[in-house]
Amino acid sequence: MIYLTRREHFCSSHQLSNPKFSDKENFEIYGKCAYPHGHGHNYELEVTVTGDPDRDTGMILDLKKLSEIIDKEILEKVDHKHLNIDVDFLKGIIPTAENLCVVFWKILEPKITAGKLYSIKVYETPNNYAEYRGGK
Amino acid sequence: MIYLTRREHFCSSHQLSNPKFSDKENFEIYGKCAYPHGHGHNYELEVTVTGDPDRDTGMILDLKKLSEIIDKEILEKVDHKHLNIDVDFLKGIIPTAENLCVVFWKILEPKITAGKLYSIKVYETPNNYAEYRGGK
Amino acid sequence: MIYLTRREHFCSSHQLSNPKFSDKENFEIYGKCAYPHGHGHNYELEVTVTGDPDRDTGMILDLKKLSEIIDKEILEKVDHKHLNIDVDFLKGIIPTAENLCVVFWKILEPKITAGKLYSIKVYETPNNYAEYRGGK
Amino acid sequence: MIYLTRREHFCSSHQLSNPKFSDKENFEIYGKCAYPHGHGHNYELEVTVTGDPDRDTGMILDLKKLSEIIDKEILEKVDHKHLNIDVDFLKGIIPTAENLCVVFWKILEPKITAGKLYSIKVYETPNNYAEYRGGK
Amino acid sequence: MIYLTRREHFCSSHQLSNPKFSDKENFEIYGKCAYPHGHGHNYELEVTVTGDPDRDTGMILDLKKLSEIIDKEILEKVDHKHLNIDVDFLKGIIPTAENLCVVFWKILEPKITAGKLYSIKVYETPNNYAEYRGGK
Amino acid sequence: MIYLTRREHFCSSHQLSNPKFSDKENFEIYGKCAYPHGHGHNYELEVTVTGDPDRDTGMILDLKKLSEIIDKEILEKVDHKHLNIDVDFLKGIIPTAENLCVVFWKILEPKITAGKLYSIKVYETPNNYAEYRGGK
Repeated sequence: MIYLTRREHFCSSHQLSNPKFSDKENFEIYGKCAYPHGHGHNYELEVTVTGDPDRDTGMILDLKKLSEIIDKEILEKVDHKHLNIDVDFLKGIIPTAENLCVVFWKILEPKITAGKLYSIKVYETPNNYAEYRGGK
Repeated sequence: MIYLTRREHFCSSHQLSNPKFSDKENFEIYGKCAYPHGHGHNYELEVTVTGDPDRDTGMILDLKKLSEIIDKEILEKVDHKHLNIDVDFLKGIIPTAENLCVVFWKILEPKITAGKLYSIKVYETPNNYAEYRGGK
Repeated sequence: MIYLTRREHFCSSHQLSNPKFSDKENFEIYGKCAYPHGHGHNYELEVTVTGDPDRDTGMILDLKKLSEIIDKEILEKVDHKHLNIDVDFLKGIIPTAENLCVVFWKILEPKITAGKLYSIKVYETPNNYAEYRGGK
Repeated sequence: MIYLTRREHFCSSHQLSNPKFSDKENFEIYGKCAYPHGHGHNYELEVTVTGDPDRDTGMILDLKKLSEIIDKEILEKVDHKHLNIDVDFLKGIIPTAENLCVVFWKILEPKITAGKLYSIKVYETPNNYAEYRGGK
Repeated sequence: MIYLTRREHFCSSHQLSNPKFSDKENFEIYGKCAYPHGHGHNYELEVTVTGDPDRDTGMILDLKKLSEIIDKEILEKVDHKHLNIDVDFLKGIIPTAENLCVVFWKILEPKITAGKLYSIKVYETPNNYAEYRGGK
Repeated sequence: MIYLTRREHFCSSHQLSNPKFSDKENFEIYGKCAYPHGHGHNYELEVTVTGDPDRDTGMILDLKKLSEIIDKEILEKVDHKHLNIDVDFLKGIIPTAENLCVVFWKILEPKITAGKLYSIKVYETPNNYAEYRGGK
């Protein structure tokens, strides 16, 4: 079993607050991330696929095709967008790094046609990142 | 003459569009940066001061104090904010990296109490950045 | 299960040598790291916590609080210090990256109040780092 | 169990194509990587060893010795070389990142004299990398 | 005057040797870079343009267009190629970082339609790079 | 005129304090950097030389030789050392980044045998660095 990773980038706005909570509660929970007009990040997205390299090609899957899948399914929807407002598949979801990992997993997992999805990592900054490896 | 640089970080939203232009024109000029709900970046801000090190301290100026000045004058106003909406000193200014450099220069230049401000660099991403060294 | 990571930084001195060994033996074992007056690093510390995101907040735990815990328990004790001399919890411990991971785990593990500590990574340089995931 | 990692670098050429395939098929499979005169990368190689730190030294193994082993067994053979032409142990192997991981594992695994080899990571670029942890 | 920089990437092979010299001389001059089958790098190319931001757009020039110019004039010709063999505009030129800077300047300088070209930087590795600012 | 840069690394301890000042004054001036047992950094040193590439070699000077000069004159003296105690050429000098630049310039400037020394940059951390370009 080999693990093959493709790293992509997107620049988006988001805001962290839950409409169930009062403004005061949201600031207590999310701090500066709750400011009403949002802020943004240069997100990094790492998608790792696992499998055995094909004997003839030496590849688990074509990184170019993986990149195209990520681009079509994720980046075209989130890049240069406001994650709370512009993205259908994030409606009703608080766009923490944790939640982005799970949502991106659900979207990408059925699209991987060679090997199996192993991990989704989302970096908000070089100092803050989340990872999801599927399952419960 | 020595050049001393402090690098700081802030995470903000912005949107590029000029109300003088039609939506169509704004998209032609700014592309994805004109999307109406904005997007964001992990900005990097480099402030370079030039001068002669003090004979007794070996320092042009105290980087800790420079960091405090940048924090008070710039970061507290822009970090986790929407640059087009939340920042008084950016009202009416299109927040391109070029314009941010000039505005930050005007704010910081009179606050530097040892040495002289030499350069302001603003990175939107590792691949896109602007620099201003003062003057015309 | 999601994995959430916070990366922090500290600048410290250390020296590698064991008083049980002769100077000659220490130099054979540790090379330049045994020089008597020590040397230093810009250490990077990655703390990874695992758990399920809270349904209401979308977060495993508040990264700001995790950052405060790391700051209070670790960084205030080691940053800008000499690890062999200044740090109570390192007395009698050779401050290799391997040992730092284990010591930091023992300190942080009981302080994590949401989710569970999963991994401690200590980078001495971008090219040399150790990781501990608990257990034997 | 601690995991200790050493990162090394090498600059090499490679070309991806399988002589079993026609030129047209190779371009369909490998895209620009199939160009006949090859291209190159600043490869990064991460070698992770796992084990218990020695009680007297605080080290799983000496990173300096690990670095020497990697240098002698791998870097001297591949650095500033063309991977398809110049490297005996890559004869007949398509030098994808996946295959490099497996070949490097087979070479290094018996040379690790303290701890056990845990993982080999090969970065072609910061955005494309493969990992192998042994086994089937 | 503002300085605006766009960073791009390409992966190429090259070999350093001068046919005027004997093999022995070439090895004395270029070391490992003279190996006959070449080696490669993940090159980074930084193109800096200087000018005054347009009053209406806030931009010196459109970074997207600058990126397209660099792509068409440089990257399409050198990316995934062997610089000594595949690139018309490098025929007869030893592809050192110094020479690449000058050649890229000559190609790009007349294509910059807003602002003026100020600097070309070519990174062979993060540790080795050359810069050219025009003129003699 | 081309500018050619070589980046090197060293890991050292230092402490900032002036014996002319009281402990209290040193803490006011240098903060945590005045702690008595010192702290350390992964320093980065960038040495830039300027000149015209030789017509036959395409190089201003051989980066390998520049690297050897830096290694012999600087790195062997400072790497894995305590800058306040172990380094002859730093005796009586407060080892701020500003002062290190000037001292390294004075040592390296007469050793550069092709081209001319243009700049010395010393990074204490990625966020704090000084540069010296010679002269008054």
